[in-house]
Amino acid sequence: MRLTIKTDYSLRVLMYLGVTGDRLVTIQEISECYDISKGHLMKVVRHLGHIGCIKSSRGNNGGIKLNIEPSAINIGSIVRKTEPDLALVDCMQADGKCRLELGCKLTSILDEALQSFLKTLDKYSLADLIQNPSGLASLLDIELVSSEN
Amino acid sequence: MRLTIKTDYSLRVLMYLGVTGDRLVTIQEISECYDISKGHLMKVVRHLGHIGCIKSSRGNNGGIKLNIEPSAINIGSIVRKTEPDLALVDCMQADGKCRLELGCKLTSILDEALQSFLKTLDKYSLADLIQNPSGLASLLDIELVSSEN
Repeated sequence: MRLTIKTDYSLRVLMYLGVTGDRLVTIQEISECYDISKGHLMKVVRHLGHIGCIKSSRGNNGGIKLNIEPSAINIGSIVRKTEPDLALVDCMQADGKCRLELGCKLTSILDEALQSFLKTLDKYSLADLIQNPSGLASLLDIELVSSEN
Repeated sequence: MRLTIKTDYSLRVLMYLGVTGDRLVTIQEISECYDISKGHLMKVVRHLGHIGCIKSSRGNNGGIKLNIEPSAINIGSIVRKTEPDLALVDCMQADGKCRLELGCKLTSILDEALQSFLKTLDKYSLADLIQNPSGLASLLDIELVSSEN
């Protein structure tokens, strides 16, 4: 059982931006840090923009950052919005075909298990994932710039 | 998020054998019924034999049937034994590598969600999936032979 790469990368990008805070970060920087393809990341970043989690600024000093507070970014919600379908087996897809379709209890049991999975994720926000930003910054080799208020 | 074909087919084979009861069934029969490849099914059947759910008889009138009562075949246990790994994201694999590895709360949250998923499946056995054997037999176009006691 596996979440898609898209969800994996989405969560990692959000964690990165949760740590870098208000600084505008380039896709290049995240790509180098995690050693993952820039092409993949661009799609993920576009998606995270669409669902309202991040905003981007164009131009020479452009980049991306979170659009909302980490505590307002719910992990269950991100997974729901990022997984292309949550059909655990073929027959749970909209166009799935199985002879058992009409009489099958398996789909309802799998759906109940899936809801338990998502409800557990609903308990957590991005803020829970980045409780120790300076520790994470050190692992990611990010230099934290203290905000100049 | 998707379970592997192996798990999908394993559960469907078990449901089939739960309905056919004591009759020895050939892989050919199951393959034709579900319209899935015989090669795939043979691997699945071998696996279900290894984990003690089914037994096979060789020879002209050979075939397979359940080795234990449907009520003793737990769905959560089948999924645990059939999914090749339960790593929801790459970094949860034994050889997974991510810079966040040591400081990442994501893996523990995903693991908690996975445990909720499996615990829900633990509540059900194969008997729950085949509560209406004659209805299922009709969907599967299986003729049920009443046992001659």
